[in-house]
Amino acid sequence: MSDMMTAVIKPRPGAGLELTQRPVPSIGLNEVLVKVKAASICGTDLHIYKWDKWAESRLKPPVIVGHEVCGEIVARGAMVKEPNLGDFVSLESHVICNTCAYCRTGRGHICQNTRLIGVDRDGGFAGYIAIDAQNAWVNPPDMPVEVAVLQENFGNAVHTAFTADLVSKKVLITGCGPVGVMTIAVAKAAGARAIYATDVSDYRLDLARKMGAELAVNARTGNVVEQIRAATDGEGVDVLLEMSGAPSAIEQGFTLLKPGGAAVLLGVAPGPFTFDWNHHIVFKAARVYGVSGRKLWETWYQLRGLIRSKAVDLQPVVTHRFALKEYDQAFAVMASGESGKIVLFP
Amino acid sequence: MSDMMTAVIKPRPGAGLELTQRPVPSIGLNEVLVKVKAASICGTDLHIYKWDKWAESRLKPPVIVGHEVCGEIVARGAMVKEPNLGDFVSLESHVICNTCAYCRTGRGHICQNTRLIGVDRDGGFAGYIAIDAQNAWVNPPDMPVEVAVLQENFGNAVHTAFTADLVSKKVLITGCGPVGVMTIAVAKAAGARAIYATDVSDYRLDLARKMGAELAVNARTGNVVEQIRAATDGEGVDVLLEMSGAPSAIEQGFTLLKPGGAAVLLGVAPGPFTFDWNHHIVFKAARVYGVSGRKLWETWYQLRGLIRSKAVDLQPVVTHRFALKEYDQAFAVMASGESGKIVLFP
Amino acid sequence: MSDMMTAVIKPRPGAGLELTQRPVPSIGLNEVLVKVKAASICGTDLHIYKWDKWAESRLKPPVIVGHEVCGEIVARGAMVKEPNLGDFVSLESHVICNTCAYCRTGRGHICQNTRLIGVDRDGGFAGYIAIDAQNAWVNPPDMPVEVAVLQENFGNAVHTAFTADLVSKKVLITGCGPVGVMTIAVAKAAGARAIYATDVSDYRLDLARKMGAELAVNARTGNVVEQIRAATDGEGVDVLLEMSGAPSAIEQGFTLLKPGGAAVLLGVAPGPFTFDWNHHIVFKAARVYGVSGRKLWETWYQLRGLIRSKAVDLQPVVTHRFALKEYDQAFAVMASGESGKIVLFP
Amino acid sequence: MSDMMTAVIKPRPGAGLELTQRPVPSIGLNEVLVKVKAASICGTDLHIYKWDKWAESRLKPPVIVGHEVCGEIVARGAMVKEPNLGDFVSLESHVICNTCAYCRTGRGHICQNTRLIGVDRDGGFAGYIAIDAQNAWVNPPDMPVEVAVLQENFGNAVHTAFTADLVSKKVLITGCGPVGVMTIAVAKAAGARAIYATDVSDYRLDLARKMGAELAVNARTGNVVEQIRAATDGEGVDVLLEMSGAPSAIEQGFTLLKPGGAAVLLGVAPGPFTFDWNHHIVFKAARVYGVSGRKLWETWYQLRGLIRSKAVDLQPVVTHRFALKEYDQAFAVMASGESGKIVLFP
Repeated sequence: MSDMMTAVIKPRPGAGLELTQRPVPSIGLNEVLVKVKAASICGTDLHIYKWDKWAESRLKPPVIVGHEVCGEIVARGAMVKEPNLGDFVSLESHVICNTCAYCRTGRGHICQNTRLIGVDRDGGFAGYIAIDAQNAWVNPPDMPVEVAVLQENFGNAVHTAFTADLVSKKVLITGCGPVGVMTIAVAKAAGARAIYATDVSDYRLDLARKMGAELAVNARTGNVVEQIRAATDGEGVDVLLEMSGAPSAIEQGFTLLKPGGAAVLLGVAPGPFTFDWNHHIVFKAARVYGVSGRKLWETWYQLRGLIRSKAVDLQPVVTHRFALKEYDQAFAVMASGESGKIVLFP
Repeated sequence: MSDMMTAVIKPRPGAGLELTQRPVPSIGLNEVLVKVKAASICGTDLHIYKWDKWAESRLKPPVIVGHEVCGEIVARGAMVKEPNLGDFVSLESHVICNTCAYCRTGRGHICQNTRLIGVDRDGGFAGYIAIDAQNAWVNPPDMPVEVAVLQENFGNAVHTAFTADLVSKKVLITGCGPVGVMTIAVAKAAGARAIYATDVSDYRLDLARKMGAELAVNARTGNVVEQIRAATDGEGVDVLLEMSGAPSAIEQGFTLLKPGGAAVLLGVAPGPFTFDWNHHIVFKAARVYGVSGRKLWETWYQLRGLIRSKAVDLQPVVTHRFALKEYDQAFAVMASGESGKIVLFP
Repeated sequence: MSDMMTAVIKPRPGAGLELTQRPVPSIGLNEVLVKVKAASICGTDLHIYKWDKWAESRLKPPVIVGHEVCGEIVARGAMVKEPNLGDFVSLESHVICNTCAYCRTGRGHICQNTRLIGVDRDGGFAGYIAIDAQNAWVNPPDMPVEVAVLQENFGNAVHTAFTADLVSKKVLITGCGPVGVMTIAVAKAAGARAIYATDVSDYRLDLARKMGAELAVNARTGNVVEQIRAATDGEGVDVLLEMSGAPSAIEQGFTLLKPGGAAVLLGVAPGPFTFDWNHHIVFKAARVYGVSGRKLWETWYQLRGLIRSKAVDLQPVVTHRFALKEYDQAFAVMASGESGKIVLFP
Repeated sequence: MSDMMTAVIKPRPGAGLELTQRPVPSIGLNEVLVKVKAASICGTDLHIYKWDKWAESRLKPPVIVGHEVCGEIVARGAMVKEPNLGDFVSLESHVICNTCAYCRTGRGHICQNTRLIGVDRDGGFAGYIAIDAQNAWVNPPDMPVEVAVLQENFGNAVHTAFTADLVSKKVLITGCGPVGVMTIAVAKAAGARAIYATDVSDYRLDLARKMGAELAVNARTGNVVEQIRAATDGEGVDVLLEMSGAPSAIEQGFTLLKPGGAAVLLGVAPGPFTFDWNHHIVFKAARVYGVSGRKLWETWYQLRGLIRSKAVDLQPVVTHRFALKEYDQAFAVMASGESGKIVLFP
């Protein structure tokens, strides 16, 4: 094993990334070293690529990018009990503190000391990554690499969908990016009675239909509220799963939400916006749930069940594959909106 | 419309039923008159037929038997707002008081003043039945009669299955009578990861497999605990749905239940029995839920969703059909255990 | 009993009310006639008095005002089973349809066909009121009239407080009008670890302290976020009970809300406003619950328990009493903010 | 610091304990050494003292007994981040594995690899104890030692009581040993409407009344079902908190439980017993919850809140104090039933 590895880094403040050579990382007593098999691109990575305000406020370059990663355990710290050498693992990207009240009460996903790989510390667009042993989730050896690498992001979909009770419910999913279309698949597996979806990209709406949406409306060219109202006999939907962060989609979603309905929010808005609190939440007795990350590690157990039972098939979500060094081309496709999930191979 | 109708009654204490003529019932201000299209036989009806201890303690003959009924509204009391004349309805069999604390807090299924048709008042093995308007559930006009008539009993399956969270869970269903196999279908629709079933009839275990059980074990000839333990990698199941009432099945189910698991109990035991409270509930931190009837009317809305979305197909459950006057033959098949649901047509 | 009664009505669009004579109402088969003993003034009544936009959009004058009412049953329709003649009752103000899906599933508080007395139909600032029998809640004969009349409004406090789990939690209550201070008392009874309160009236903040607030901050003269942050060791609160509708209070409340915390919203905002969705809900994984009215009739059973066990004492909440004909004077006190609850006696 | 310490051990199979000298334990990288300030006696310790079947099947002597412990941190392993040297701590007695699915999903209280101090490994009836850092719960320095030492056991009471919703509910607590009477205090703090208690010791029933029971019935001399039925207007109770394990108490408790009620079970029965499953659980739609240990560490945060807010006062629960070497005398008092909690001081 060479001492050096290829890595895609944010070298300094500003747009773009850089391909470079970096030492293979050393590991602590409780850490493992993972030889990366694949890493996929998240919307967050695009923010980092473009260097928007959020990225500027959060990242301290240089840092290796990438937090959706799978690979093989090639070294273990002295105190690691599992996983074993040779295990095929996917990584949970949030490294939590284990000592705060959130971590100690099964709510590590809201640990305020969390450090995100590829953002707050070196990530997985590289040959190797060092990470806490508990963040390595052991996969069956025969799981396809493209499925394994998707699981971190799939966890967002599972966490969002399972926050509301979906059995026999009419569900609206606003935003059909990769996590949106995976959420459609989970909602279908969870017994939703009918699934409606919206986006502004016809490419993604096609993917939404393929994953199980009964009706997929283009919010730019169609009339979301009218069409979904009609499809639900004028009633609207029982559950809104908001994956876009677009204020207009949020407005449409809450307009369509039935009294007593549940709205689960994963999408991140561009900033504060004006909202009709009274009609959308108070008078309607709506229940609104913010969602952040995955439940550690309940969501991982849940997604394992969904994949093993074949209740959800993630393969159609991967639409593009690139070598790690072709990262610039991959980010261009990602930015076009004409893609599902894009996977990089080191 | 004639003043008289055919009816199958329990004429007096003792085994057996009797075919007779009875006046078409009159209706109160809040009642409707339903012309029966079909009525199906429940396990409870078999207890009444055989006149066991429970039947002896509860029924006051003469009474028209039968509580799983669908038909057409042919008359309405003066204060009835819905359903309308001509509506095709299925009947909720529990006529609740609407004034007790249970009824007033959305828990009418445990109303202590409830009166059950076919048991506490005249039922539906007859040409007509009079019932409170709120007990008549309006079906789509084109719903197959055999599906419509099953809904009351299907509601037990839905109520039982929806009492626990089943998404991505391993589920054991003990007892594959008609309500058991319908519960299998609901568990599948609700996203269960794997469904295991037990019974003592191979006929019913075949039906269980057809409805979605991954493994169906004959408790008389197989080793339930060993086989299901093996099928779950030694772990056992997350959820037990107990539909048999057999103490041996209850024992097996709780033995297989994982720590922190949920057990939902619909089956009625033959009487008190010995149970290892410590190991099966306390040490295991199990949650145990008794289930009685359907939630009024939440379960009906849920089952409507499952049927409309085609998430559940009830047709395979109906295995036999008879004319009402052939009731003796129908009860003989029912008693043999070699049947799913049996439907009678007046 | 005379055929005529005194009543305070909104005679026509515009500010103010009018004292007039009206016929004692007749009752339907399912209704009761209540001789009013007392009626209290709600914030809603002040909106009607002033004739704001909401009032203009909703009321169709002439209408008798007043929806917080207690009195005695003096007549019953032919089909009424309870309450009995002579019973001392308080009224639930929402007359629900009983036939929609919400009403049929224990969620009558979000019935979309509800008609509110004193708003959509004649209310209780009068000698008598006719209302559905099920809306009459029977009190113990010896309950003080001033407590009995407060129960409808107290129900808002109970519904709001019981929506979140408060045991051992730090709770912030924004808005110390009558329902706010009653909510403080409920939170205390429900085992809250510490209760913080905010308002802009020192009079009401004093009342808040008397009802159990550990710290009561004037949002006009103090620094809400700093003071409550300090009082909670920098942590903030587990639960926000928002009773003011003021966007500034909502902003402060969500700023103080801990990650994973719960916000329950009863306050009605003056209109849409700008809100930082990301930081206040999504990243924080907050749960937000809109609250409307009372749970019918679960909330009433709960408040009965709180009053009977003396866990909550409502007497300090009533600060002013007037004869019904002094309504103008009463509304002036109400508008000043220098009051708790004001009770009118016909 | 001497190398040796005094310890009370189970030296070999058989009744009784022994006072001896043992080396002060060494600590691992993640462990702390606690200088014991006090240790209290649990019912489990009495089983060990008497050497009943359970003790025989579980313990491997020699082992230092005692699992309710508080003390001071006097040494820390190299990887311990908290607590700090000098911290005053109470100990969680269950040392969990942190790697199984239960531990990784916030349900460490049902970890199947748990090792209990004083049972599976050396405990705290000694001068010092070594334990995982995460099991040391930091107390305020000024917390009375007698309160600090009670917290582990108090956690059972909190876990049991908080498993059901108690606000405004009628609650029956069967079994008034130390954990039973602490449960009474928690139920009171959690807003129970009325608390009823049963036991066979008048001494303990007196303590129950002191802690907040409205009615305390001696099951040996009184008629539990009749007296509590009368006290609840014939209705029975909403919640049963079963702390005795006595089949007769369980029978009485379920007989008194209302339809739809909740039963929480902490008491350990002497063995399997006959139970009327149908009437007590199924027909009644009861919810039954087994409780084991404390939620790690949610229960500890909850009990901290209850103590800090003075919602619960534990001091009356401690009725006897002994030097550690007087352990034989202490166990004699414990066995008499004429005690609350007994505290030993090394």
